[in-house]
Amino acid sequence: MRSIDDRTGLEILSENECLLLLGRTTIGRLAMVHEGRPEVFPVNFRRDGRSIVFRTDEGTKLDLVEAGHPMAFEVDELEPHARAGWSVVVTGQASDVTDAEAAETLRKLQIRPWSTGPKARYVRLLPERIEGRRVVRLPDAYYGRDT
Amino acid sequence: MRSIDDRTGLEILSENECLLLLGRTTIGRLAMVHEGRPEVFPVNFRRDGRSIVFRTDEGTKLDLVEAGHPMAFEVDELEPHARAGWSVVVTGQASDVTDAEAAETLRKLQIRPWSTGPKARYVRLLPERIEGRRVVRLPDAYYGRDT
Repeated sequence: MRSIDDRTGLEILSENECLLLLGRTTIGRLAMVHEGRPEVFPVNFRRDGRSIVFRTDEGTKLDLVEAGHPMAFEVDELEPHARAGWSVVVTGQASDVTDAEAAETLRKLQIRPWSTGPKARYVRLLPERIEGRRVVRLPDAYYGRDT
Repeated sequence: MRSIDDRTGLEILSENECLLLLGRTTIGRLAMVHEGRPEVFPVNFRRDGRSIVFRTDEGTKLDLVEAGHPMAFEVDELEPHARAGWSVVVTGQASDVTDAEAAETLRKLQIRPWSTGPKARYVRLLPERIEGRRVVRLPDAYYGRDT
């Protein structure tokens, strides 16, 4: 059984489906609020159980994590021409992994940052909400008169 | 001549390079602040001159646009295994295109939303800032001891 959102025509994914999709991807986009403004940047990540883990250095990102700011993390595989694909958004609070043993375990996930620098700090985003949508292929007429 | 960020090892792209990259992509991720929390979702878009144009319906997204909230828009092509790729972030204020003639011009851009529904409203994000980074391929040793 599939669950389709009437307003958008998109299939609503279960949490299990979202977790599977998060497990097969390694690049996502992290959004946070800094001084009232949105910031968004790509990060390499791994799913670890229900949580999202990524590496960072000292800096704005880590300051916002340590201040307990809410974060939103988006992952997708969308093909514009095929009108196919999915998107998953994880929202919640992140925390700096300070425990040495936990950090050692995370090191084994082999998260490779896409920028250089030590990236010695591990951050774990614990989801309050995991939401996913999949594009359901429909006849062109469903996509509005302008397409 | 290339400009390399010492801290991240990433090449800093000029605005012209960013605009070229924005012009060859049609899916980006829009981040905004809603009730103090970050939201991020994928949108189909077109670059129109220096601005980013996308379609939407009545709803939270359009409400935030009309309230003049700041937005951040991210586009990337990153290949985790190749350690190759780029990311561009456009930040600024968006506005609802209410002028009929302007909307007609935008219709010609043929922006195809990835969800169904009329998506009759056009939104234009006018950049205050356009920033881009490109991954410069370096020997593994540069990527930190954990990789």
